[in-house]
Amino acid sequence: MSSVTQAQQPSPALFFDTMNDYQRTAALKGAIQLDVFTAIGEGNSAAPAIAKRCQTSERGMRILCDYLVIVGFLTKEGTSYRLTPDTAMFLDRRSPAYLGSAVTFLASPMLTDGFKDVAAIVRKGGEVMSEKGTMEPDHPIWVEFAHSMAPMMAMPAEVIAKTVGAAEGRKWKVLDIAAGHGLFGITVAKHNSNATIVAVDWGKVLEVAKENAQKAGVAARYQTIAGSAFEAEFGSGYDLVLLTNFLHHFDPATSEKLLRKVYAALGPGGRAVTLEFVPNEDRVSPPAAATFSLMMLGTTPSGDAYTFSEYDRMFHNAGFTRSELHAMGPFPAQIVISYK
Amino acid sequence: MSSVTQAQQPSPALFFDTMNDYQRTAALKGAIQLDVFTAIGEGNSAAPAIAKRCQTSERGMRILCDYLVIVGFLTKEGTSYRLTPDTAMFLDRRSPAYLGSAVTFLASPMLTDGFKDVAAIVRKGGEVMSEKGTMEPDHPIWVEFAHSMAPMMAMPAEVIAKTVGAAEGRKWKVLDIAAGHGLFGITVAKHNSNATIVAVDWGKVLEVAKENAQKAGVAARYQTIAGSAFEAEFGSGYDLVLLTNFLHHFDPATSEKLLRKVYAALGPGGRAVTLEFVPNEDRVSPPAAATFSLMMLGTTPSGDAYTFSEYDRMFHNAGFTRSELHAMGPFPAQIVISYK
Repeated sequence: MSSVTQAQQPSPALFFDTMNDYQRTAALKGAIQLDVFTAIGEGNSAAPAIAKRCQTSERGMRILCDYLVIVGFLTKEGTSYRLTPDTAMFLDRRSPAYLGSAVTFLASPMLTDGFKDVAAIVRKGGEVMSEKGTMEPDHPIWVEFAHSMAPMMAMPAEVIAKTVGAAEGRKWKVLDIAAGHGLFGITVAKHNSNATIVAVDWGKVLEVAKENAQKAGVAARYQTIAGSAFEAEFGSGYDLVLLTNFLHHFDPATSEKLLRKVYAALGPGGRAVTLEFVPNEDRVSPPAAATFSLMMLGTTPSGDAYTFSEYDRMFHNAGFTRSELHAMGPFPAQIVISYK
Repeated sequence: MSSVTQAQQPSPALFFDTMNDYQRTAALKGAIQLDVFTAIGEGNSAAPAIAKRCQTSERGMRILCDYLVIVGFLTKEGTSYRLTPDTAMFLDRRSPAYLGSAVTFLASPMLTDGFKDVAAIVRKGGEVMSEKGTMEPDHPIWVEFAHSMAPMMAMPAEVIAKTVGAAEGRKWKVLDIAAGHGLFGITVAKHNSNATIVAVDWGKVLEVAKENAQKAGVAARYQTIAGSAFEAEFGSGYDLVLLTNFLHHFDPATSEKLLRKVYAALGPGGRAVTLEFVPNEDRVSPPAAATFSLMMLGTTPSGDAYTFSEYDRMFHNAGFTRSELHAMGPFPAQIVISYK
């Protein structure tokens, strides 16, 4: 019935809503900056109390909180606001799973400016910010990424360490390509005290990774190689190569070039572990993975969200025997494990 | 079952999606600028053909079209894209109901810049762009509004003309306050050949309204008063006063001041007709009306999306006998009719 009614009454609602969707991002960013979710988590439930705690106007806080109810981050009963379970877990600063710091990267103008003129990036078929976009050597966005995205990657890093069987404790040499915050290699090292990690990234980014390795107590088993993954000397005999959030930045031919280097660096029976947004073959589902394609169009010259069959082909062309796709539960990414 | 599963697995998906929602607005704006929907409506269904028609890269067009499928503007079967019924109606340039020009207003930096720093507008409790935001005298955004939002208002203008019984053809004197494109008064004049319209707005905006009155063949019954609605001499004996998309810009006390002027200008039995986004008393539903509150926080010093009980009180305080709320079908706004 409802779909019949909709078919009979054409509506501009989606157009109108979508034209204002930028305010969703802006409101969430503002709420995190003001620490609204922590204030509510602490027990401030009415707008005047939340406003006082966050040092804002009451009127502004009432309007912001109502908006956050509408877009799904809060609930409202009478004039009382409450956190949803997901908000309490990820956006209350007192939660160990707090993700709010990721805003610094996700809302960074270095990223968001890539979408100021979508017509231009579609015309060109790649980013229009600079010659190589975020792929410029030593682009400062990756230091920002390393600092602010680590909490967001804690869950997938745990899933990867479990999926590859790190806890079995075998003597491993692990190469972590484009290590960023270093969390993926560090988590493997925490699960497996017989693992040594070699992290590759831009020099300034590796400073962040080394600091995190120190904090995690694995610094003694943590080595680094500064520079481009395409030019660095990896060495050989690796049991595991981690390729997390990296291949999406390049076209398939460029990735294959790197994958051949990875293949050569792996010892017999070694595995490459790729963490990626992998859309289904229809390229329009699931939404979180499939929309990532536009993120790459706006920020890289020729990156994309590749399907599993595309990754399978790249790894196959680079010499790998076979690849497997693993889901990651609630985290909107997938793991591809490829065998030498 | 599904909600139990969700409760057991906390997910950062909404946080991540919302942080990227600005790309929805950007992609839709880009698609309209490139005329993608018209290209598909004309029968170009695969990315290479659409790209050729819109003079873009194939890769960029494929990524954009996939994104437009995900956010609901297109459907995809194999590699063929099709318009949804709503998209065909409102975003194909060849449709008489084409709304694409509204992008110029809705995506105008004069509007969107108001949300660059939501933390700041919440702290202050109002816009931070300038002293009065879009409420500055002769602010150029209202000429933009008059030019680009007319198509979007065609449907509500028809509903208003019908709701007030314009077709009965009684001799009417109609005051159209903040007339903008003029469409509301003009549509009443088209339905009722015995109606005379007096339109009030900034001088440059009235040029647009007069042009539209000319096109609609009602120029002979169309008069204008240039200036602020708060200062203009309205005259008296009006049968109808139109207050469309206007009261939300002000605080209740300011609106009541205007409504007392409106009351005085109406003849016996006269009616004020208010078109507004009117949220329910909970202020968080329906979404399109309730989110408008944030739009006012970001662009005005003290405007809001008022509930019906708030409008009822403002009109009552200004002397009106009673007010009624009328729904508008698929258009996300409501009509309040208030009787002298």
